[in-house]
Amino acid sequence: MRVERVTPIPISVPVEQALKTSKSADGDDEYHRILIVLETDTGVTGYGEIAPMAHWPRGLTQSACLDLLEDVLVPAVDETRVHRIPRLVEDLSSRLADEPFPLYGLEVALHDALARERELPMYEHLGGPVGGDPELECHYTVSIDEPSRVAEEARTAAADGYEAFKVKVGGDDFAAERENVRTIRETVPDARIRVDVNGAWSPDEAIRKIRRLDDDAGGLAFVEQPVSRDVVDGHARVRDRVPVPILADEACFSASDVARLATRGSADIVNLKLAKTGGFTGAKAAATVAAAHGVSCFVGGMLELGIGQAASAHFAVSTPEVAYPTGIFNVDVGDSLLANDDEWRIADATCTVPSSPGLGVELDSEALERCRTD
Amino acid sequence: MRVERVTPIPISVPVEQALKTSKSADGDDEYHRILIVLETDTGVTGYGEIAPMAHWPRGLTQSACLDLLEDVLVPAVDETRVHRIPRLVEDLSSRLADEPFPLYGLEVALHDALARERELPMYEHLGGPVGGDPELECHYTVSIDEPSRVAEEARTAAADGYEAFKVKVGGDDFAAERENVRTIRETVPDARIRVDVNGAWSPDEAIRKIRRLDDDAGGLAFVEQPVSRDVVDGHARVRDRVPVPILADEACFSASDVARLATRGSADIVNLKLAKTGGFTGAKAAATVAAAHGVSCFVGGMLELGIGQAASAHFAVSTPEVAYPTGIFNVDVGDSLLANDDEWRIADATCTVPSSPGLGVELDSEALERCRTD
Repeated sequence: MRVERVTPIPISVPVEQALKTSKSADGDDEYHRILIVLETDTGVTGYGEIAPMAHWPRGLTQSACLDLLEDVLVPAVDETRVHRIPRLVEDLSSRLADEPFPLYGLEVALHDALARERELPMYEHLGGPVGGDPELECHYTVSIDEPSRVAEEARTAAADGYEAFKVKVGGDDFAAERENVRTIRETVPDARIRVDVNGAWSPDEAIRKIRRLDDDAGGLAFVEQPVSRDVVDGHARVRDRVPVPILADEACFSASDVARLATRGSADIVNLKLAKTGGFTGAKAAATVAAAHGVSCFVGGMLELGIGQAASAHFAVSTPEVAYPTGIFNVDVGDSLLANDDEWRIADATCTVPSSPGLGVELDSEALERCRTD
Repeated sequence: MRVERVTPIPISVPVEQALKTSKSADGDDEYHRILIVLETDTGVTGYGEIAPMAHWPRGLTQSACLDLLEDVLVPAVDETRVHRIPRLVEDLSSRLADEPFPLYGLEVALHDALARERELPMYEHLGGPVGGDPELECHYTVSIDEPSRVAEEARTAAADGYEAFKVKVGGDDFAAERENVRTIRETVPDARIRVDVNGAWSPDEAIRKIRRLDDDAGGLAFVEQPVSRDVVDGHARVRDRVPVPILADEACFSASDVARLATRGSADIVNLKLAKTGGFTGAKAAATVAAAHGVSCFVGGMLELGIGQAASAHFAVSTPEVAYPTGIFNVDVGDSLLANDDEWRIADATCTVPSSPGLGVELDSEALERCRTD
C-alpha cells in the first residue's frame, strides 16, 4: 500500500470553554487546527490532526504548519510505502529538524491508514491494549475560580467518578491557587491532586511553593514543569529538595530528552504528547527510553479536536509505561468534527477507546465543510 | 490470527569449524539448538531458533530451554492474537524473568508468522531497510593461529571484499595476539580491526593491553567487552583511559542495560543480539535507548544456524542505529537446515537479506529429520 494523496485542511472551531493557564494566549475565541487526510492506492483513508500552538516551544502558527506540510513533508511521502513508517519518520525528521508538530499529523495519518488496511483498531496495531481492555482513566482539570465554585466543580466531578484532579498554578495569585488546592482536598478527601506550573517559577520559588502546596493537598500526586525548560538542570535542583514527584512537559519532547532528563535526575515522570514526539513512533521511543530508566509516563494533549484526542487515547491505552490518569481531554471543544462522538463518551471518568479499525473515529462531513477555512 | 500450536524441536548439527574464544567450551563437536515451529489458525507457519549457550550469562542448556518452553512459555501463547506481540512479550518476560534465550525463539516465530501473514519480508515488517536496500556489510573473524596462516587468511578475506576484521584476544598468549593484529594490519593496510576480549582482563590489564593493541593495529575500530560484566563500572574506568571505543556485549542484554551503561559512561557501542534481548521487541527497544543516548549499535549472533542468522540479519538491516559491519555470520555451521541457502549467499562481504515474506528462509525438511533429536 502506497501513499497516493495527502491533503492538509485548515480548520477553525469556536472555543466553548477555554482553558486558562499561566501562559494562555489571551483573546483566543477560536481553535485553529489542521486536519490531514491521507489517501492510499488501495482506497484506504487515514486521518491526522495538528494543533499548531504557536505559543508553545516548537509550536507554529497554522499557516506556518501548512507551508511546511505542503512544501516539505507532503512531497516527501508521495508514493512511499505506508508500512515503512519508521524509515519515513527518519527521513521526515531530517527534512524538518526540531519541528515535530507538522510531522505529528502526517505520521498519525500514515498509521491510521495502515491500521485501517489491516482492519485493526489502532490500539491493537500498536501492540494491544494494556490490561486487556481499551480503557483509560481520565483526570479532571479544575478552573481557577473562587472557592465556592471550585468546591461545586470538584463535587460534581467526583460524583461523575473522577478521582484525579489537575490544578493550573503559576499565575499571579498564589494564595488563590493554594485555596483551590485546599478546597479540592476538603471537598474530595481521596482526590489525587496534581498541579501544573507551566514553567512559571524560578527554582527557589518552586521549592518553596511546592512544599506549601504539598501541605495544602495533604500530599500532591506530582507537580508538572515547575520551572522553565530553559533553566539548565533547574528541575534536578527542585527534585532534590521537594518530596513531590516532578513531571517534565515543556522540557521533554523526544526520546533523547527523556534520556537527558533521566541521566541528570531531572524528572520522575514525563508528559508524552504526540504533538511533541512527532507522532506514535517518537512517543513509543520516548516511552521505551523512560521504561529503561525507571521514569513513568503521563499522556497529555495539545487541546486537539476529536482526531487528535483519539490518536492520544490509542497511544495511551496501548503503552504500559503510562501510569497516571490521562490528560487528553483537557478541554471541552465546541466541535470535535467527529460523526461518531457517541462511541467515545467518557463514563465514570473512564474513556473507552473506539474499537473499529484505525483511530476508530469518522469525520462528520457537514461539520468539516462548516469549519474548513481553505 | 491466533496461535494454534507451538512445537519446540531439539536439533544437533556437527560443528564444521569451531570458533575459539577465551571462554570456549572445550570438546564441543556438535551444536545443540532448538527450532521453534509456530502454527496459526490461518494456516501460516512461523519459525524461530534458540542457541542455548549454557556457558553464557543467562544462557541455558538445551534441555533446560526445552523445559521452560514447554512448561511456561508455550502454554502462555496458546490461542493468543499474534499481532499483540508487545503485550505477549511483557507477559512472557514476567513469567520468565531474566531468561531471554527461550523467549527469543518464540518471539521471532511470532513475528515471522505475522510478517508472512502480511506478505512482508521481515525487514519491511520491521519498518523498511535502512538506506533502501536490504544489504548488510559483514566482518571477518580471524582464527588464532601462527602468523603465516593468519596472513594467508586475511589476504583471502580481503580478496573476498572484507574490510572489517575481528580478532579474538584475552587468551593465554598476548604476544601471539599482538602478532595476529600486526599481521592483519600489514597484510590488509586499510583493515578496520576490532578485538574481542570476552571479559577476560582486569581493568588495569585492559588499559595496558588495549593501548598496545591499538598501536599494533594502527588504530583499533573498537574493543569488545574488555573486562568482566561483574566488575562494577570496570568498563567506565577502562573507557576513561584508552583512546579506543568500548563495546559492551556480555554486560549488555536489555534496554535497561543500555540505559545504565550510557548513564555511567561505560560504553560507546553495544552489541545487540536477539538471544540476549529476547527477540526483535527487546532489540528494537535497546536500539531506541542507545540512539537516545548517542550510543552506537553492533549486531552479533550466538552461533545460530540459518533461522537465527536470518532473524539477526533482518533486524540489523532495518535498524538505523546499527553502525558497524555485522558479526552474525561468525561461524561456518555444518548444516543451516535451510532449503534456500542460495538466496542467502554473502558476496563481496555483503549479505543480501532474503526478500520473500517473513524471515524469507525455508526449512530443509530432510535436514530437519536428520538433525532432530526428539
